[in-house]
Amino acid sequence: MTTTVGDFGLTCGILPTGANNAITDVPGVRVGHCTLRNGDINTGVTAILPHGGNMFRNKVTAASHVINGFGKTVGLTQVQELGTIETPILLTNTLSVGTCATALIRDAIRLNPDIGRTTGTVNPVVGECNDGQLNDIQALAISEEHALAALADAHEGAVEQGNVGAGTGMSCFGFKGGIGSASRKIALGGERHLGVLVLSNFGKPGDLLLPDGRKPDSRQPDQAERGSIMVVLATDVPLEHRQLERVTRRAGAGIARLGSFWGHGSGDIAIAFSTGNMVDHDEARDLVPLLTLNEARIDLLFRAAAEATQEAVLNSMLAAQAFTGRAGTRRTSLADWLRDQAEKA
Amino acid sequence: MTTTVGDFGLTCGILPTGANNAITDVPGVRVGHCTLRNGDINTGVTAILPHGGNMFRNKVTAASHVINGFGKTVGLTQVQELGTIETPILLTNTLSVGTCATALIRDAIRLNPDIGRTTGTVNPVVGECNDGQLNDIQALAISEEHALAALADAHEGAVEQGNVGAGTGMSCFGFKGGIGSASRKIALGGERHLGVLVLSNFGKPGDLLLPDGRKPDSRQPDQAERGSIMVVLATDVPLEHRQLERVTRRAGAGIARLGSFWGHGSGDIAIAFSTGNMVDHDEARDLVPLLTLNEARIDLLFRAAAEATQEAVLNSMLAAQAFTGRAGTRRTSLADWLRDQAEKA
Amino acid sequence: MTTTVGDFGLTCGILPTGANNAITDVPGVRVGHCTLRNGDINTGVTAILPHGGNMFRNKVTAASHVINGFGKTVGLTQVQELGTIETPILLTNTLSVGTCATALIRDAIRLNPDIGRTTGTVNPVVGECNDGQLNDIQALAISEEHALAALADAHEGAVEQGNVGAGTGMSCFGFKGGIGSASRKIALGGERHLGVLVLSNFGKPGDLLLPDGRKPDSRQPDQAERGSIMVVLATDVPLEHRQLERVTRRAGAGIARLGSFWGHGSGDIAIAFSTGNMVDHDEARDLVPLLTLNEARIDLLFRAAAEATQEAVLNSMLAAQAFTGRAGTRRTSLADWLRDQAEKA
Amino acid sequence: MTTTVGDFGLTCGILPTGANNAITDVPGVRVGHCTLRNGDINTGVTAILPHGGNMFRNKVTAASHVINGFGKTVGLTQVQELGTIETPILLTNTLSVGTCATALIRDAIRLNPDIGRTTGTVNPVVGECNDGQLNDIQALAISEEHALAALADAHEGAVEQGNVGAGTGMSCFGFKGGIGSASRKIALGGERHLGVLVLSNFGKPGDLLLPDGRKPDSRQPDQAERGSIMVVLATDVPLEHRQLERVTRRAGAGIARLGSFWGHGSGDIAIAFSTGNMVDHDEARDLVPLLTLNEARIDLLFRAAAEATQEAVLNSMLAAQAFTGRAGTRRTSLADWLRDQAEKA
Repeated sequence: MTTTVGDFGLTCGILPTGANNAITDVPGVRVGHCTLRNGDINTGVTAILPHGGNMFRNKVTAASHVINGFGKTVGLTQVQELGTIETPILLTNTLSVGTCATALIRDAIRLNPDIGRTTGTVNPVVGECNDGQLNDIQALAISEEHALAALADAHEGAVEQGNVGAGTGMSCFGFKGGIGSASRKIALGGERHLGVLVLSNFGKPGDLLLPDGRKPDSRQPDQAERGSIMVVLATDVPLEHRQLERVTRRAGAGIARLGSFWGHGSGDIAIAFSTGNMVDHDEARDLVPLLTLNEARIDLLFRAAAEATQEAVLNSMLAAQAFTGRAGTRRTSLADWLRDQAEKA
Repeated sequence: MTTTVGDFGLTCGILPTGANNAITDVPGVRVGHCTLRNGDINTGVTAILPHGGNMFRNKVTAASHVINGFGKTVGLTQVQELGTIETPILLTNTLSVGTCATALIRDAIRLNPDIGRTTGTVNPVVGECNDGQLNDIQALAISEEHALAALADAHEGAVEQGNVGAGTGMSCFGFKGGIGSASRKIALGGERHLGVLVLSNFGKPGDLLLPDGRKPDSRQPDQAERGSIMVVLATDVPLEHRQLERVTRRAGAGIARLGSFWGHGSGDIAIAFSTGNMVDHDEARDLVPLLTLNEARIDLLFRAAAEATQEAVLNSMLAAQAFTGRAGTRRTSLADWLRDQAEKA
Repeated sequence: MTTTVGDFGLTCGILPTGANNAITDVPGVRVGHCTLRNGDINTGVTAILPHGGNMFRNKVTAASHVINGFGKTVGLTQVQELGTIETPILLTNTLSVGTCATALIRDAIRLNPDIGRTTGTVNPVVGECNDGQLNDIQALAISEEHALAALADAHEGAVEQGNVGAGTGMSCFGFKGGIGSASRKIALGGERHLGVLVLSNFGKPGDLLLPDGRKPDSRQPDQAERGSIMVVLATDVPLEHRQLERVTRRAGAGIARLGSFWGHGSGDIAIAFSTGNMVDHDEARDLVPLLTLNEARIDLLFRAAAEATQEAVLNSMLAAQAFTGRAGTRRTSLADWLRDQAEKA
Repeated sequence: MTTTVGDFGLTCGILPTGANNAITDVPGVRVGHCTLRNGDINTGVTAILPHGGNMFRNKVTAASHVINGFGKTVGLTQVQELGTIETPILLTNTLSVGTCATALIRDAIRLNPDIGRTTGTVNPVVGECNDGQLNDIQALAISEEHALAALADAHEGAVEQGNVGAGTGMSCFGFKGGIGSASRKIALGGERHLGVLVLSNFGKPGDLLLPDGRKPDSRQPDQAERGSIMVVLATDVPLEHRQLERVTRRAGAGIARLGSFWGHGSGDIAIAFSTGNMVDHDEARDLVPLLTLNEARIDLLFRAAAEATQEAVLNSMLAAQAFTGRAGTRRTSLADWLRDQAEKA
């Protein structure tokens, strides 16, 4: 069972959480991991599938926002131009982006033999953080098989968090970071959700601010940030690309509430999709009906995005256990710090 | 009767023109002018009304694109964020933008007394070019009344072009510039149109390239560009903001085909709206249906935007008669140049 | 004497403040106000002068960042294209932007008679918030003379804050808002500063978060945000435009730390300038030397921008006294709330 | 000897060309190719090296511009944020981007063993076009060795053009496309250059417009564009990032002059670098002097960028010989069409 903010009496904002308090509260969304832990190799791949069908045939409305662009995520140019995502989203370490992109391409060709023949090519989306402090990142240990394993592992329901998949070797504010998730219920045209999954690897030791005003000390030396955070947002509220882009930007507010100022060396990138408006690759009509949100209601999604991002980061740290990685580098757990504080009180 | 490219056997591209070959071929669109010619004062205001109703209550889907941002157009920040235009669009000289914006605000309050009281404020959209070579621009001769007169003059049907409204004192590639318009028919979900109106005031003497490869010589001294061009695109094809923004960008291709490289000193700005999707200021539904274009059909609009922009600029020059402005500065007419060439042949 | 966070034992971050704890800690920067209080008229103009000389002749390096674009600020297109500001910056109410822009134009022509004659035009920069709840904004009460009065009032040294100038009728998180300022010392190539001045008019009642974790209750009804915040950042650290734009973005982090998620109806816009690199309008050299910051040091400015923005907003609220505006609408003071809390403790 | 526009009496603009009329006229710039031709495999890799040293240690000032974002280029997010390029630039087919990125990463680690250990990671830049009509792109035939071979082949001086490297299987306006290059001399602070290298694979049959007004017919069926064009611009004029981004945008004008409207299915992306301002990875100073261009001179670079891009595309087509690719698909040569026309005349 994953430990989350609720276990420590912390709350991020005011909106109710979904059943799993995870990105998978958005119907159809699946998450899978492939974890590598072997000596100095502590890394992995995490897959987010917007739905269980053929992503290339049924694209989801998508947007992205670069909070700080010291990052190597691939696929964003086309996401911004066309407003769609047409593959699963993979997260991994910085130097394995190319391999994961190639794996997504091969998988898309397998499912869609017309790619690069009678139809266009495919745009893989892969995000990354630098786990070089706990992982031998120079080993380029991720293979296409690992990417496929993360895809194969994807399932609905509870999301495994902490030191898992791409989160295996990540650090956050000097503590152990990794994979975290959270969600918010949205009452708009029925019950809908906004869910967030983060790969947390950012923040300077000493800067972390908890929702209750405490500033946990990771007892790490003060050093420049060379981290990053990937934020993946999902919703089943129907939005057009422009609206979704506005929502995506609010991930930055969630991160700032944690005490971060989006450091120079951190690639802070948010990617979002809505399953509320699918785009059929083989659409035959000239004009296509879709649903958009009444813009006067959008604050509800802005709030949800900020709250769920803030909470997903905290959940990533609370689910992550203390860890000893490459060359004996040690990261303590925020959960342990909170338990110590509770004992002292 | 306005002189256009057709009168000189020139054609811009391959798509058919609308009945007026003007922005008013988009149903509901109206254009009006207020022209000031008095000694060294040679300037004016041109109004484009997306429809004949209350613009604040029924906004049009909109987008803008900054080709070269050496310009002072107002209103674009909100257009890009919300994807709508909620006032008529005014064009005028650079130093009169503030006055025209104030006129639009007062007019919107008159029609909507809840503005700034029980609802939000209003975002005026005003574009400009620098007519300082032919007009005493320091006189700030445009008053709010002139702006209102242009609004009052707005009508459907043929568009007066050349040395009229905001175009009165403009220059283009060393020739006389001004207001020009053109349109293309679009067969998408029935017969629809894309129309363009330009305020042309750009281009270095000697750079103009006609569609047939000729390079007219305006016999003007070679000097740095301090011009600008405003391009207003209208269509009744239903588009979402992202799609409309893509179409808007193609105005730049139309300008480049004329031999321009979008000079440093030129504020080259395109603003577009679609009447195919209105946004109700008082919308009560959570989710709002709209129609978008099948993205695979969008090349038709791209081509129309490039062709109509190129042609609208040429029409602005062909409709403009030779002109003597401030301090005796003279601009010849491209139409005269073409007639001379025809006589010589 | 202005009341600031220090008077209440609150601190925003870890960097030291400048001597005035204000934007005027950046050498040469001047601030002036013109305040209108007369019945339902509660509004004004605030002027920020990057230096005391001719701004058109000696431009400052500048950048802007649109956090949420529901706003009507003018001048940003050219600031982003050319990376300079060439007039003072004025702040006022939303519907008076046009008038203030015209005032800046006329003032620039007065000082530079070549504008629009033998050199180009001038790009006025005017920001705004909607003070319609406390001010009869429909009256368009600001005249060009008021704008000139704010310019004439500009001086170095302490900055008057709270219910003054453009801040006269502003609200923030349900409390009285207005003008606030703060600064941070930067040790880079000698002692330098980053200063911020805000016009605060944003935030939903109940969302405000103090640095110590408290959430003050303004006892205002829960209503959608129709506010805005203008953030003006100044520094004497030499930066190129790209670097300055990165710094400008961090204003958003400061705002988010206050509990805001950058609401839909709020035009949240940041404008920044560096006096460390001037641009000579009449530059004769082909190549111009300038100083840029070693990018590896930029976190210091990011942190300063986030901290000073957060603190400037709090200072705006702490300096603002309780206020009764248009139609008897009342705003309490955050300072009073804090004093009440202190008495209760 | 490569055939270029000059061999057919065509000229693009008015500026003089450099000695090689190629991107290598910028001192230090090197180009290399690796070509694969084997049955249905007709593809390759082209490498552009901004200088001959360690790119990670001595980065070049860089910028990019997305003309139309239906493309999969990697590395642009960081280029735009930091304004530098720190690896060679590779061009290849769309589905081989991941492999080429990984090759650049491994090569950078080999030269800089501190990457991912004691310093940050590295940002590979790889552009692409879809050669699926003439190449079995599904085969993913490019290996890391091919990428390294293109790097090893890089040299100064004349650039091999046409059906070579990444250009092997490309098509342009229905003719054979591929690699093309051109340059312009720039008299600014001494003799300097702007050079362009393109990978041309765009344009609808029938749309090509020659500089003399002719419209060559490739006798290809009329079909939607699924192409792309990569434009790489190099200059030794010292520019700051903002200025370089402005220059980069003008690649779009060069493409538009050829009759293109930047089609929906075409990823039209420009990447530029200036060798005039290097960025030292290990910079120790707080403040770093650099040279920027007097902005009033920038039209010269705008013109050069537009002209050289237009000419580089034509050169790519003129250097490319007629070609029979995958499944017997045939592309004729523009050079042959021009020779036929000359014979007929």
